[in-house]
Order: sequence, then structure tokens, then C-alpha cells
Amino acid sequence: MKKIGIIMGSDSDLPVVEKAFAVLKEFGVPFEAHVYSAHRTPVQAREFAENARANGFGAIIAAAGMAAHLAGALAAATTLPVIGIPISSKAFGGADALLSTVQMPKGIPVATVAADGAANAAWLALQILAVSDGELAGKLDAARAENAAVVLARDAALQEKLAAD
Amino acid sequence: MKKIGIIMGSDSDLPVVEKAFAVLKEFGVPFEAHVYSAHRTPVQAREFAENARANGFGAIIAAAGMAAHLAGALAAATTLPVIGIPISSKAFGGADALLSTVQMPKGIPVATVAADGAANAAWLALQILAVSDGELAGKLDAARAENAAVVLARDAALQEKLAAD
Amino acid sequence: MKKIGIIMGSDSDLPVVEKAFAVLKEFGVPFEAHVYSAHRTPVQAREFAENARANGFGAIIAAAGMAAHLAGALAAATTLPVIGIPISSKAFGGADALLSTVQMPKGIPVATVAADGAANAAWLALQILAVSDGELAGKLDAARAENAAVVLARDAALQEKLAAD
Amino acid sequence: MKKIGIIMGSDSDLPVVEKAFAVLKEFGVPFEAHVYSAHRTPVQAREFAENARANGFGAIIAAAGMAAHLAGALAAATTLPVIGIPISSKAFGGADALLSTVQMPKGIPVATVAADGAANAAWLALQILAVSDGELAGKLDAARAENAAVVLARDAALQEKLAAD
Amino acid sequence: MKKIGIIMGSDSDLPVVEKAFAVLKEFGVPFEAHVYSAHRTPVQAREFAENARANGFGAIIAAAGMAAHLAGALAAATTLPVIGIPISSKAFGGADALLSTVQMPKGIPVATVAADGAANAAWLALQILAVSDGELAGKLDAARAENAAVVLARDAALQEKLAAD
Amino acid sequence: MKKIGIIMGSDSDLPVVEKAFAVLKEFGVPFEAHVYSAHRTPVQAREFAENARANGFGAIIAAAGMAAHLAGALAAATTLPVIGIPISSKAFGGADALLSTVQMPKGIPVATVAADGAANAAWLALQILAVSDGELAGKLDAARAENAAVVLARDAALQEKLAAD
Amino acid sequence: MKKIGIIMGSDSDLPVVEKAFAVLKEFGVPFEAHVYSAHRTPVQAREFAENARANGFGAIIAAAGMAAHLAGALAAATTLPVIGIPISSKAFGGADALLSTVQMPKGIPVATVAADGAANAAWLALQILAVSDGELAGKLDAARAENAAVVLARDAALQEKLAAD
Amino acid sequence: MKKIGIIMGSDSDLPVVEKAFAVLKEFGVPFEAHVYSAHRTPVQAREFAENARANGFGAIIAAAGMAAHLAGALAAATTLPVIGIPISSKAFGGADALLSTVQMPKGIPVATVAADGAANAAWLALQILAVSDGELAGKLDAARAENAAVVLARDAALQEKLAAD
Repeated sequence: MKKIGIIMGSDSDLPVVEKAFAVLKEFGVPFEAHVYSAHRTPVQAREFAENARANGFGAIIAAAGMAAHLAGALAAATTLPVIGIPISSKAFGGADALLSTVQMPKGIPVATVAADGAANAAWLALQILAVSDGELAGKLDAARAENAAVVLARDAALQEKLAAD
Repeated sequence: MKKIGIIMGSDSDLPVVEKAFAVLKEFGVPFEAHVYSAHRTPVQAREFAENARANGFGAIIAAAGMAAHLAGALAAATTLPVIGIPISSKAFGGADALLSTVQMPKGIPVATVAADGAANAAWLALQILAVSDGELAGKLDAARAENAAVVLARDAALQEKLAAD
Repeated sequence: MKKIGIIMGSDSDLPVVEKAFAVLKEFGVPFEAHVYSAHRTPVQAREFAENARANGFGAIIAAAGMAAHLAGALAAATTLPVIGIPISSKAFGGADALLSTVQMPKGIPVATVAADGAANAAWLALQILAVSDGELAGKLDAARAENAAVVLARDAALQEKLAAD
Repeated sequence: MKKIGIIMGSDSDLPVVEKAFAVLKEFGVPFEAHVYSAHRTPVQAREFAENARANGFGAIIAAAGMAAHLAGALAAATTLPVIGIPISSKAFGGADALLSTVQMPKGIPVATVAADGAANAAWLALQILAVSDGELAGKLDAARAENAAVVLARDAALQEKLAAD
Repeated sequence: MKKIGIIMGSDSDLPVVEKAFAVLKEFGVPFEAHVYSAHRTPVQAREFAENARANGFGAIIAAAGMAAHLAGALAAATTLPVIGIPISSKAFGGADALLSTVQMPKGIPVATVAADGAANAAWLALQILAVSDGELAGKLDAARAENAAVVLARDAALQEKLAAD
Repeated sequence: MKKIGIIMGSDSDLPVVEKAFAVLKEFGVPFEAHVYSAHRTPVQAREFAENARANGFGAIIAAAGMAAHLAGALAAATTLPVIGIPISSKAFGGADALLSTVQMPKGIPVATVAADGAANAAWLALQILAVSDGELAGKLDAARAENAAVVLARDAALQEKLAAD
Repeated sequence: MKKIGIIMGSDSDLPVVEKAFAVLKEFGVPFEAHVYSAHRTPVQAREFAENARANGFGAIIAAAGMAAHLAGALAAATTLPVIGIPISSKAFGGADALLSTVQMPKGIPVATVAADGAANAAWLALQILAVSDGELAGKLDAARAENAAVVLARDAALQEKLAAD
Repeated sequence: MKKIGIIMGSDSDLPVVEKAFAVLKEFGVPFEAHVYSAHRTPVQAREFAENARANGFGAIIAAAGMAAHLAGALAAATTLPVIGIPISSKAFGGADALLSTVQMPKGIPVATVAADGAANAAWLALQILAVSDGELAGKLDAARAENAAVVLARDAALQEKLAAD
């Protein structure tokens, strides 16, 4: 099975990124995670991306805030799908990281998810692997059904609460 | 080979979306395109997405403007990767469609590309297929090298222009 | 008397939405509330909207945050008035939910109220029912007059405070 | 049958507002339209709203740009549903008029539609009248079905075009 | 001496507005303050403005948040200078109140100050009175000089701190 | 009678600023206009403001775009009321000039009007002079009444048009 | 004399960047310009920056639009000052490129100028060289004085125009 | 060795600005810091800038919030490089100070860094001095290498943590 690479620009992003770890573990998909900065350790970041396909990765998730260049820098060094998580921050909310991540030029896309959307980045990575992995696709469909059941259970709980009022 | 599905919310989006057609044709990857509206023909949109994996699709591209719900509605009906193209418009530039496309809840990601970024949506779809298709991956790498050569040629042209000034 | 349907995308929206419950109870107008997600339980959401008129509803209130598709998805499935409450969130304040709710395409309007404006959503629902219900209209007019009296009382309290300074 | 009132803040808004006229005419619902400014002719605006219910109106549509106070001013003078159309302009796109229209205080809602969304304002007004008018509700449902058919026809046209390419 | 009128849309604005009281007291300029809502008590607001010149007011300060129509509504009812304080709020920071206050149509200006800028609203009111009141102008000039001295004292304190490091 | 000073940061602002000239001429109020840049000719700008009260000015209007510091720089050099016109531009619409003009620190207010709102800047200047000039106040009230009449005439024209349709 | 390096991400940026050429030519400061993309030719971009100090450059100007990573990528590869010009575009005005350029992490600054501010980028580069080049500093001071004279001449022209009216 | 001047508009900016002090001290580069306000003590601010080159300064850092005119005012009074730190605030995050700082007119650039980016302002000042100071350039390169090592150490720590999970 292909692995997922997860790169974060700073270890201060870890509390957000760990939500991606959790999703990947839940589905039993192997991953490697690194702290590589697009600006402070660009060579390591680039090397990771250049060799990712040969090293058995199927997709790369990149999390960064502010002028979030990390996903784009990785995307420039591989034709594997690169998924960008914009990390929100104080001065501009999610706007600076989102625009820096999503507005990529022609030929170098970054598959951008919601601000701080690490769980969804993992989901997207799994959906990408599942394109050629029917078993994983089945697990994702099952998880979707479970998530729906959770929502229905919450609706049932609300009905009880309203009836009790 | 898996196909790419391309859904646009309105045929007024066609001038943007045709850039995706062009990229897919260039790489010889088959695609189907439809005008399905998340709000006017939600049943058709949903059915397309629900059956897309069984019908041989590997990824779905969705283009929509304003309150751009199309990509999210399709994503809710399949665990195939869904790629969203926010179409920019007059009153809010790209902000309304971008935020409506990218800010998806947990478990239902949309792989969002730049505003009006139809070529990149196609590139991302190809990169997704190439995860399990070494030949396509090779073509993408070659195209990247060609794109780099184009930039270098433009640099050379600039050098000539500057030397001639 | 027609009922008001209140749908929230997640039970985390409940603290905001309860302000709508309070207003409807104050006016003695019956309502049903559900947790239905546009993306996780789209079928239930759609069915609720499709059958709402036949089931005696006069208007539907929908509350959702981020890429807030819920109100639009319901509006696509009924010609009852659908009122959207954009729920504000951390990364983009109220901008993502507001734009995702209000920027609907032609023929599928969502009557959008202020970010987190659940009380006003209920007020709007009541005003819609009151179009054909003179008694309710009278109650609304009376409540308006009371609200004005509250403002005047606060002004009087301010006068006392200023006089005492 | 109840009438729809349409108030615009300036006759420069007429090119946008005429799309509302067209929708109302299509459904045979009577309307009155006025140029009343929240700031230049506030008394006339207020009087219109105060007497609107007694004068047989079922909803009021208000279109204004910039610091778009018109819808709110009308809403303060009636408990009929007031629908706000934010008119976009040069310096801030749709942001100034949208925020000025939608962010109303508790108890005075404005049912806000998309920037320049005059057709949807009319649709919403019709949907409000249809709450107690089954025949109109039927017409709206039929128009929805027609609109869906238009989308399907455009999809068919796209299929022909793609097949011919 | 002319008085300053201070109108706030809600008594929840009082903590901000009290900074204006403090400035006016410091300069010994009389003021009246009221809680009048543009939407809940529009008649009282309008009457205050219509009679303000005759009642000895020289300028009106209006503070309001969200769809901040209050300053504009007062400005429509008097040709006295009306000064608007946009009150910031959670979902849109200062953007909704600022745009609702400043983007007034031709002939009905609102002299807008910074978000939550109540002290400056008072300063502006004093500067307006001082156009025809040389003594007050002198006091304002003196206060400016004092404010400059405060800045210079803070610079001196910084020099001491840096020298001590 | 006191004069109005009008300072623009660049003669490219003249097409906007001339609307202020027109209003002042209409009311017969004398003005002086200058091209003084806060950054290129700061000394002249400062001198104008420092001497403005002594030179018979009653208010200063300042128009500038982008990082619009002009109004603030003038306001720092006088305690006359300074009115700021934010000039909109391509990259940020009216946002850069508006925020640069309105967000002034305590004690140095700029009375900010709408983006490109030169006519309103002149109106505000006139309203400031009229605080101590009953005749001018009367003219402003009369002009307001005329403006209202224009709106009513446009409403009448609309009624004719609608009746003829 | 040290040279200025000018890197643009695409030759479509040339019409903006040529304003920087013009300023550098006016001051007789040598420059080299290249089309190097942060994403398409990252190796060339990086090599240019890594060797720039050794190759006699004193500052690097980088112009890019959308997710404008170029300036940051160059800044990561040199400790020469890197000046970023955000190129404005259709969907987000100047916001995407500005935020992508300016919001750099600690230790890797980009000296950002106004959106499309190529002339100022050149000015800033010259000011940086002039820190250790008194002759160039003198030329810059002289040019400033000339620019002030131009503003004064425009003011004189305005006075003539106003006198002739 | 040339000194760095650091000017802040208010001593409330000190907690942010002290990060610049720390960087300069780390590199042993002398600096002077002052509290000078563009609006409250403009003469002192201007004099500092006018004499800065003669007084041995090589660059000026200016920190200010809201309508952040300080950097621009200093830049207008010197041709030394002026570096602007936009200080973020409550109502508009970093938008007001960023736009007020960066959008400078032709010929008067401000080298703008990230919102609250005081450390980077110091880094940029050091990089400017290092253009003609090989020893300082060497120190900066060494510090960059150290920063990279810190990132790599954090990556190593993450590997241990992941291995231990």
C-alpha cells in the first residue's frame, strides 16, 4: 500500500496536523511526517518531494501558515498530488494561508482544503489512494455511512431534548 | 484507463472549463462533461456522483460560481476525489466561490484549486490518476520539464530583448 | 397554524440556534428542529424539504457554518421560503458562511439573515407566516412596540446615570 | 391577491431591479415600484412601509447600494417580510451593500439575497405569498421543473458539442 | 456654547461611547446622550436630529454596530454635522459597521471615525465647534501639545529603559 | 465667510475632487485647492495646515489614494476639522485608502467620507461652516428639500413608465 | 558598483516590471533581469539567488502574482535583501499576491512594496545600495527634490486653471 | 558600523518591537529606539529621519498600527531604506496597518514585512547593512544555517515521537 507523506512547516502546526494522523491511523494507512520548512530547509523539503513517488508515497499533505509556500514548493518538485492545509493565524485569520496555498499557477496545482482542515486533508489523501484500491474505497464508503449515522443519532438526541423541554 | 468527470453548474462556465478539456485531451485521458446544477438539477448531479466510481471515473472536477455548492454536493455523494474550481464573478471577485468551495466540513473534502483554475483542476485530476499509472506519471513529468523549458526560452527571449535595448 | 422547520448542519450550532427556538416559543408558533447535514445526511435533508409544505410547514430555517450549503440544498428541494443563518467561525469570521449562504443562483433564493442571527431568522419566519395571519401580525407589531419601549427604558436609565454623575 | 412592493433607493438601480419586475410579471403577481431613498425621502419610504400591510402588500423588496440602509429602514416600519437586494458598486464590489443590508439587529430582519440578485428577490417574494396560496405554489414548482429542464437541455447541447469535436 | 448630542444604538455600546463622554467633560463642553435605535425607535432618533439645531446642538455623534444605520438615519434628518463611530463586532470585525457608516450617498455625509473610535468622535465634534470658537480652538491646540509631551515623555522613559538594559 | 481648503495628493485625483469644487461653487462658499503630497511635498502640506485657521479656513478636505496618509498628515498639523476622501484604486478597490484614512489614532481624527465621495466631503465642509452660519444652514436645508424633490420626480417618472408598459 | 537582480515569475509580468527597469536606467545602476518561476524553474531561481552575492548583486527584486512564492523562494536562498512586488490579478485584486509575498516567517524577510509597485521596488533597491554609496544617495536626494518640484509645478498649474475658471 | 533606528508610534507597540531589539543584539549591531508618533510628534519623527544618514544610521525600522502612517512619514524624509512593521489590531486584524504601510506612492517605498513581524524587520535591516559588510553577511548566513538545524532537530524530535507512539 502506498504511504502518505505529511510535511508541516513548523512544529507549532502539530496540534492541527495531528488530526490528519488520527484519520490515517483509523484507516490503517501508513504515513511519514516531517517538519520541513519551505524557507528554512528548502533542500530537505524538495528532496522529500522529488523522491516521494519512488519512495512509495501516493500523496503528500503539506500544512503551513502565513505566506504558506510549503505545499506549492513541494508540488513544484513532484507530480504526485499535493494537498495543502492553510493554517489560520491571528492577523489575517485564514486568508493569508488560504490564498498563498490555493492560488497556484498553471501546471502546479495544490489540492487545497479548508483552513486548519487537517482531517479533510487526510480524507482526501485516502480518497486519492482509493481510486485504485477498491478495499480502501469500501472502507471510506463505510465510514461515510457511519458519519451519517452519527448525525442521525444527534438528530435523535435533539428530538428527545425537544420533547423533554 | 479511468475517466475524468467534469461537471459545471451552468453553461456560462464553459469558457473557463474548456481549459480543463484542453489539458485532458493533450494527455489523451478520456473525460465526460456535463451541465448539472447543484440547485436546479440536484438529482442528476447526485446520481452522476453516486455512480461515478462504478462507471469508471477516477476523479470528478466541478466548476461553479457564487455560492458554489456543486463540488461539495458531488463530494457528499461519492468517495472519489472531487476537485473544485471556484468561478470568479463581479461582486466578490473569487471570494464567494472560493470560500463556498474550500471550507468543507470534516469527512467531505473538496480538493480546491485557484479561482478560474480549470487547467490546474485537470492537472490535479491527471496527477491523481497517475498515482497508480506510471506511464501517465511519466508523461506528467515530461510535461513539467517542457513547461520549464518554455520558461527558460522566455528568459532567453528577455535576455535578447534587454541586450538589444 | 403552519409550523416552522429548523435544520442545523451540526449539533455544535445548537447554542446559536436555540435563540430561534426561544423566539418561536415566545410567539407560540410550533416548530420542529433537526440536525441534518447537507453533506453527511443529504437524503434526509432533501426529504425534509421536499415534504415540508405537505407536512404543514410554512418556512424552513437553516443554520450552517463554513461552506454553508445547507440552506441552499434545502431551498433547491422546496419552494417554501428558506431562511439561512450563517454561523461564524474562527478562520474567516462570518465571511465564509455568509457568502456561501446568500450568493444563490437565480430561481433558488435563500433569505439570509445576519451572521449568527438566529433570533432574526425566527422573526423572519414569523413575519412570513403573518402575511396571511392577521393575529400573528398583531402580535409581531405588539412585540415591536415592546422592543421600542425597552430601548426607551434604557435611554431613561442612561439619563438617570448621566444626571447622577 | 396580495401585491409586492418594490422600492429602490435611486433610479440608477433600475437596470438591476427590472429583473424583479420581469419575474413578477411572468407569474402574474401585481406589484408597485417606487424610487424612495432612505436618506433623501425617508418620510415617504417610512409611510410606504407603515401602510403596506393595510394597502394589500404581502412583501416588500428593497434595492440599494453602498451604505444600503433602505431595506433596514423599511423593515423598521413594518412587520411584513422585507427582502433586501444589495447593489454592487465600484469601490467595494458587493461587500458594502451586502453587509449594510444583512447585518440587522434582533427583531428587525431583512431577508437578504445575493448582490444584484433582483430575480431572486422576486422569487423569494413569490415563495412568501405562496405559503398561503397553493395555486401560486404550484406555479413555482412548475417553473422550477422548467428551469431544471433548461439545464438538462443545455447539458444535452454540451453533449452534442463534445461529440462533434 | 453649543452642545454635542451623542446617540448610541444600544446601551451595549456604552463602554465604547463613554470614552467620548470623558473627552467632552475634559474640555467642559456640554453634551446630551441617548439610547435611540435607528430601527427600534426610529421616530425618537429622527425627532432628536430634526430638532437638534434648534435645541442648541452643534454636532451629533452616533455609535452603532453591524448594519450601522444610525448615523446615516440621523444625518438624513439634519444638516448639522453627524459623526459616526462604527462599533466592531465578532463576525466581521469592524468591516460591517464601517462600511454601513461611511458609504453614504451624495448630499448626506457621515463624518466617520475609526472603528470604536469614540474619543476621536468627541475630538472631531470639539474641532467642529472650535471653527467658530477661538477659545476652544486654543484649548484643543494646548491639548495637542500636551499629547505630544506625553509621547516625548514615553520616549524618554524608553531611553532610560534601554540605557539600563 | 470662512474658506474651505482642498488638498489632493496628486493631480490624477482631480476628476474626483472636481465634484467637491462644484458643490462649493453651488453654495457660493470660497475655496482654495492645492496639489500637495504627504510624501513628496510634506513641508508645503504641513505649512498649509498649520496656517489654515489663521488664513481664514474653516475646514480642510484631503483626497488621496492607496496608503492615503494626506488627510492624517494635515490633521496632525491643525485642529481645524479635516475631511478625508479615500480615492479608490485598482488593486484593493477602496479598502487601502479607506482604512489608511479612517483608522486614525486618538486625538487626531479625520472625518472620513465614502470612497471617491468628493461631493459629500464638500457637503460635510458646508455643514461644518453652517454650525455657526444660519444663512448657510438654511441653504443646506433648502438643497436637501430640492434633492428630495428630485427623488420624488424620479419616482413620478417611474410611475409613468410602469403605467405605460 | 553592485548590480540589481530582477526576477519575474512569468513574462506576462513584464509590462509591470519594466517600470523598475526604467528607474534603474535613470540612475545608471546596472541590472540583470530574468524570467524564473518559483514553481516551474525552481532550480534556476534558487541558483540565481544562492550565487547572487558572489556575482556582484546587491539586492534582488522579485515580481509574481497569485500565490506569489517567488520572492520568498529567492529570500530563502540568499541573505541579500529581496524585494517583493505583488502583481495584482482579476479574482482577488492585490490581496492574494500581497499576502503571499509579505507574510514571511521569522528569519526570511521579503521587503514588500505596493501591489504592482515596480518603480518603488527599484527605488528601494537603489536606497539599499546607497546605504554605502554616498554618490548614489546624493542622486536619490536630488531626484526626490525634483519629484517635489513636479508636484509643486502641478499645484501651480492647478492654481492657473482655477484662476481661469 | 552603521546603526539601525527603530521608531514606534506608541509605547504600546513595545512588546512587538522588542523582538527586533533581540535580533539586533544577537548580531551585535547597534541601534537606537524611539517613541515618535507620525501624528502627535511629527516634527521629531521627521527630524530623526532627515538626520538619520548623517547620524550614522543605515536603515530605519518603523512600527505602527491602524492608519499606520509612521513608516511612510519617515520614508518621505530620508532616502535611507525604511522598513515598516504593520501592527495588527482588533477591528481589522492586520489589514488596516498592512495596507497603510505597504501601498506607498512612487518614489517613496516602504520595505514592508509581515504583520507584527518585528524580528523580520530586524533581519531585513541586517541584510541591508550586510550588502556592504561581508562579515555581517557571513554571520547572517551562519544564523540561517543554525535556523535550518533547529528545524531539522524538530523534525528529528517528531520522528522520535512518532516512533514512540
